[in-house]
Amino acid sequence: MAPAHRQFTFDAIGVIRSPFKEKFGIPRQSGLMDTAEAVLELLPPYDREEAVRGLDGFSHLWITFVFHGVRQGDWSPTVRPPRLGGNQRLGVFATRSTHRPNPIGLSLVEIAGIRREQGRLLLDVRGADLMDGTPVLDIKPYLPYADARPDARAGFAAAAPDAQMPVVFGPEAEAVCTARAADLPQLRRFIEQMLRLDPRPAYQAASEGRVYGTAIFDLDVRWTVADGAVQVLTISPAA
Amino acid sequence: MAPAHRQFTFDAIGVIRSPFKEKFGIPRQSGLMDTAEAVLELLPPYDREEAVRGLDGFSHLWITFVFHGVRQGDWSPTVRPPRLGGNQRLGVFATRSTHRPNPIGLSLVEIAGIRREQGRLLLDVRGADLMDGTPVLDIKPYLPYADARPDARAGFAAAAPDAQMPVVFGPEAEAVCTARAADLPQLRRFIEQMLRLDPRPAYQAASEGRVYGTAIFDLDVRWTVADGAVQVLTISPAA
Repeated sequence: MAPAHRQFTFDAIGVIRSPFKEKFGIPRQSGLMDTAEAVLELLPPYDREEAVRGLDGFSHLWITFVFHGVRQGDWSPTVRPPRLGGNQRLGVFATRSTHRPNPIGLSLVEIAGIRREQGRLLLDVRGADLMDGTPVLDIKPYLPYADARPDARAGFAAAAPDAQMPVVFGPEAEAVCTARAADLPQLRRFIEQMLRLDPRPAYQAASEGRVYGTAIFDLDVRWTVADGAVQVLTISPAA
Repeated sequence: MAPAHRQFTFDAIGVIRSPFKEKFGIPRQSGLMDTAEAVLELLPPYDREEAVRGLDGFSHLWITFVFHGVRQGDWSPTVRPPRLGGNQRLGVFATRSTHRPNPIGLSLVEIAGIRREQGRLLLDVRGADLMDGTPVLDIKPYLPYADARPDARAGFAAAAPDAQMPVVFGPEAEAVCTARAADLPQLRRFIEQMLRLDPRPAYQAASEGRVYGTAIFDLDVRWTVADGAVQVLTISPAA
């Protein structure tokens, strides 16, 4: 083949509905939050029941998606992985950074259910690291005999990130979790799982005291890091 | 997000050089042939050494590619997986069939080397199930902590396909393997690994006697199935 540029155009086959309303706070890989439930809505003309027949035989699913909100063309040959403290540059192809030539992401999720609701074909998935509104290009079943290589050597990211940061809820935040227990029973645990991973940009990890905001569900969560713990200050309706 | 169609256009960042000159014969998943060595050539402007810095710390790589020679729009809501004998229909999204809405493939390969040759940035990979000329959209390191789920439930494809079909080389074929031992030392083993997986279309599995041709390297391999074994008849220069 001649090394001429070749372009390929794809249609979104689906869209993600997720509690993560912005990028900030989303775990950097899938599978790190068991409370992260999302819905993959298949879009017409791909929303046909025959197209997912047999998928319920699989426990896990690959989602190939487009990084939401990352402008194409914004790639960089090197990036600073958060796992390396943000002060070491690696090639973009040696990371899963969003700033890649083609902003294509890959996420491994658990299949929790397949259903039709109000005419829409919906896949419930668990463990997704996907923002609300993420366009989906493809879904494929996970084949453990081909995809599982537990002994693969993994450079700078050999193990899952330590999730050791304690998360402390202030009285106002605690009260909101209690008040929403009926419609968002997992809210407290969701926030805890999200924040214990310390989503702060690596280069800011040392700066305690700054207040961050993260949008999840219909809420805006305000939090800070003090005394080596994440302090959840307030949980209020999103603006 | 409104469920409007959204389209995304991607540039090939690379191209595959592989011994498989046509689709017929290629193993249906990656990792099934350890003699299947391929080269991923990064194309300008993506062929920068900085972009792969740190990749040598990883043993495995995900390749996101475009199914070569499959016309877009040729999707089918259901397909007949060869693993089910070709007589049972499953949803295309429950398989890794090429006839999907977006002809995007995913292949897990081993990294054998990274080098620059005649100005080109080349990644040597092993175990690829990719046709020569395959356009590559993205490469990502394999992260075992996130990607390896050996216990995942896997519907109709729980285990690797049995590779039990004996492969017998006729005298002419044997002579070519010997003659090419200098430049293609793995030729005999490559053909054996490819054909023992029985690449015949599932619906023809019962029809012994038919002669098939498969193009690999610069060669055309003619073979048939008789007496429960693959018989390699001739290996001749590709037309």
